[in-house]
Amino acid sequence: MAQTIRAHFISTSTHLPLNLETAKIVTRRNQGIKIQTKPIYHFNLLTQSVVSQSMSASSPIKGSSMIRSSLIDPDGGSLVDLVVPESERALKRGEAESMPKVKLTKIDIEWVHVLSEGWANPLRGFMREDEYLQSLHFNCLRLSDGSVVNMSLPIVLAIDDNDKEAIDASPNVGLLGPNGDLVGILRSVQIYKHNKEERIARTWGTTAPGLPYVEEVIRLAGNWLIGGDLEVLEPVNYNDGLDHYRLSPRELRKEFDMRQADAVFAFQLRNPVHNGHALLMNDTRKRLLEMGYKNPILLLHPLGGFTKADDVPLDVRMEQHSKVLEDGILDPETTVVAIFPSPMHYAGPTEVQWHAKARINAGANFYIVGRDPAGMGHPVEKRDLYDPDHGKKVLSMAPGLEKLNILPFKVAAYDTVEKKMAFFDPSRAKNFLFISGTKMRNYARNGENPPDGFMCPGGWKVLVNYYKSLQAEEPGQPPDVLSA
Amino acid sequence: MAQTIRAHFISTSTHLPLNLETAKIVTRRNQGIKIQTKPIYHFNLLTQSVVSQSMSASSPIKGSSMIRSSLIDPDGGSLVDLVVPESERALKRGEAESMPKVKLTKIDIEWVHVLSEGWANPLRGFMREDEYLQSLHFNCLRLSDGSVVNMSLPIVLAIDDNDKEAIDASPNVGLLGPNGDLVGILRSVQIYKHNKEERIARTWGTTAPGLPYVEEVIRLAGNWLIGGDLEVLEPVNYNDGLDHYRLSPRELRKEFDMRQADAVFAFQLRNPVHNGHALLMNDTRKRLLEMGYKNPILLLHPLGGFTKADDVPLDVRMEQHSKVLEDGILDPETTVVAIFPSPMHYAGPTEVQWHAKARINAGANFYIVGRDPAGMGHPVEKRDLYDPDHGKKVLSMAPGLEKLNILPFKVAAYDTVEKKMAFFDPSRAKNFLFISGTKMRNYARNGENPPDGFMCPGGWKVLVNYYKSLQAEEPGQPPDVLSA
Repeated sequence: MAQTIRAHFISTSTHLPLNLETAKIVTRRNQGIKIQTKPIYHFNLLTQSVVSQSMSASSPIKGSSMIRSSLIDPDGGSLVDLVVPESERALKRGEAESMPKVKLTKIDIEWVHVLSEGWANPLRGFMREDEYLQSLHFNCLRLSDGSVVNMSLPIVLAIDDNDKEAIDASPNVGLLGPNGDLVGILRSVQIYKHNKEERIARTWGTTAPGLPYVEEVIRLAGNWLIGGDLEVLEPVNYNDGLDHYRLSPRELRKEFDMRQADAVFAFQLRNPVHNGHALLMNDTRKRLLEMGYKNPILLLHPLGGFTKADDVPLDVRMEQHSKVLEDGILDPETTVVAIFPSPMHYAGPTEVQWHAKARINAGANFYIVGRDPAGMGHPVEKRDLYDPDHGKKVLSMAPGLEKLNILPFKVAAYDTVEKKMAFFDPSRAKNFLFISGTKMRNYARNGENPPDGFMCPGGWKVLVNYYKSLQAEEPGQPPDVLSA
Repeated sequence: MAQTIRAHFISTSTHLPLNLETAKIVTRRNQGIKIQTKPIYHFNLLTQSVVSQSMSASSPIKGSSMIRSSLIDPDGGSLVDLVVPESERALKRGEAESMPKVKLTKIDIEWVHVLSEGWANPLRGFMREDEYLQSLHFNCLRLSDGSVVNMSLPIVLAIDDNDKEAIDASPNVGLLGPNGDLVGILRSVQIYKHNKEERIARTWGTTAPGLPYVEEVIRLAGNWLIGGDLEVLEPVNYNDGLDHYRLSPRELRKEFDMRQADAVFAFQLRNPVHNGHALLMNDTRKRLLEMGYKNPILLLHPLGGFTKADDVPLDVRMEQHSKVLEDGILDPETTVVAIFPSPMHYAGPTEVQWHAKARINAGANFYIVGRDPAGMGHPVEKRDLYDPDHGKKVLSMAPGLEKLNILPFKVAAYDTVEKKMAFFDPSRAKNFLFISGTKMRNYARNGENPPDGFMCPGGWKVLVNYYKSLQAEEPGQPPDVLSA
């Protein structure tokens, strides 16, 4: 059965076919020839025995008191919870008052949120230097038992010279929110140099000016990093009307258990859902059913933290996603919509590992990866910043992700014969229309409709209204809605 | 006994003390305070049971037909040998004549040499894309049995558009040396994009202009990389009078076995040996004897491939090293001097992993790491390119190096009271003289002698003659002789 799904997901793709059983790799070169060689390495794709998993997981799991789904263990064994219990908060607050303070930015708070709920499990706070160096050089951490967890993005807190001087020899530091309210405590701190050039080069594979997270976060940050064990005084909330979507890994696992999921497949996105995305998600569910799973659940998991200015804002996306479910494009019975609180780095192959790793902690055992995940145009040169296939390849080989089933994305485009979004068929390429971001934008800007079947009418309306509001305010850079 | 050496090598150092047994880490901050935390990761330092190893290895190993020392296995199990057996050379040569050809540079040949003898074990040729991506993103390769070997530098062959066009769909390619002679064959080739910016950023952690390997190799190279299985038609020789120093990993293992070594400690260097280096090497041997080893052998292993223009040339260094042994500063009975054929990247923490990994393949089970290994000044800014402590830290955490015992370097300086090179004692810092590269150069340039006991007279004379010959030719940038 494992071979069935592999054959399907891979052999119909135009990408590098990967096959574990035969340990052979077929490389396609531009010339179209195939060469068989025996690689010395192995891949992450579908390493779990899906049949035995399906069998064991198909036994009903009951009881809402469970907080861990049985499908996949969190990295490091059990989920951390860095939020101080209510009974201890007053005490800790009093203690923190006497500590030197560091003021956090809005994006620092997003990372506090991420850490506090165990998305970065088993990290218990902002990275100390040893964790930072392992993340930067190896994209993973080796735990004390010798096991390896993926950790591709440095999760760090920057401070400036004044902060460092104020902290002096204090082992513990109080953390203030952007409004000056006490947010948490960082204990047993370690302060070390923030070599921005090296961090940027090793994370993005470029130091070209114009990378959104670099320009808006790193360049403005201090020249020191402070690591330590984090304690958060209250659960992080944003009071933007979307907090009910912000399910923690613990809550998501509980939800999957309540729904008696025997497979959870995660779809990361930061853009509106068009019918090509929906086709892919529905097709994935169908394949999982064919494999023998009885109740695969989709985690539709839009990223909710920092995004670049020309991405569609979170509230608009959440409204659009709602319409997609209301219009029946995705089935609410088998879909969980929740917000992933991480900020976006746009760091391509390095970042896609973080996106996948965090979903392991949330209980997803299948991860869908697309073309050029977390990618963008090169900020200076006229090309994609990353090879569009590298994200999938790097993810398939990443240390610490062996237990996750990685499902390569198939390319969808508008089929002008069938008048709907369909998997691209190279044998009749002329019948397919790739609707670019620019074309999309022009439709929306001009109040025109895209071809029938590109996006559900309710979802499309949300976007049209958003573009109209943008035009009313300023011309700006309209967002690209085509990638995930 | 493991604790004895750990205590010695670490507690007298000013660097981050690492202690496996207690899983505690003491971090020293600029403020001088100590904080104890329990890290979630573990270190590579001294992970072998040195006592049991000493016992098992102290049984005499005889017979010159052995090619593998029992101290440490090559990465991936057994050493590759990519040199075609003599009996097959004529046939292969004939076969290669009909293949499309790629012309190699002098530095490509150095990599052919490295690959052919198994320094990069278990690599069997220039990297294909999957190996390249793993090296670039993870500094390691996961083998088909799930084990991990370190592989921090991309070992790749670049070709240009014309080469690619000429190769077209041919699965095999003939490799020509710089003079047009047939050197080898690359089989089952895969051609993929050479994204220089990304390669440079991820390898060096900077894209600043002026990195020697980048300017002299990568910028001049083609925009494609070609990977494949390498066959080398003749052992690589340089005919420079130094080939007898170029022992392969196989020959070195044989040498260590013949000497009945029960520990081999490698010292990588690309500079002349001063008495501080010698002190360190002799001290290491003493400590190994104290640990119970009966016959520790030093592998004095100067790098012989590409170095930057202002480094001391290989022939001068080899002459200087000879004098150091002649003058009795190092004991020829317990020292093997050989040339490591790799080119130098000057890529700091990324490169030091390669330097250590290659010595595993040569049979060394201890590796001495110093301050700022493979480092240099930032090519644009007025600072070290790498944090001088990062090399040691990264090495101690690097995946695939767990079986190697990493020995942190102690800082040596000239003790003006004892009138000799000695380990720096911070409690009487004013008695120590750090002889900088500039000061060194000035002594040599002016025909003056450095303080007594800085370097043995024979070795010093070699350098003075070299500097004199340099002055006679052109002013140039004199080399820095102080680091290893």
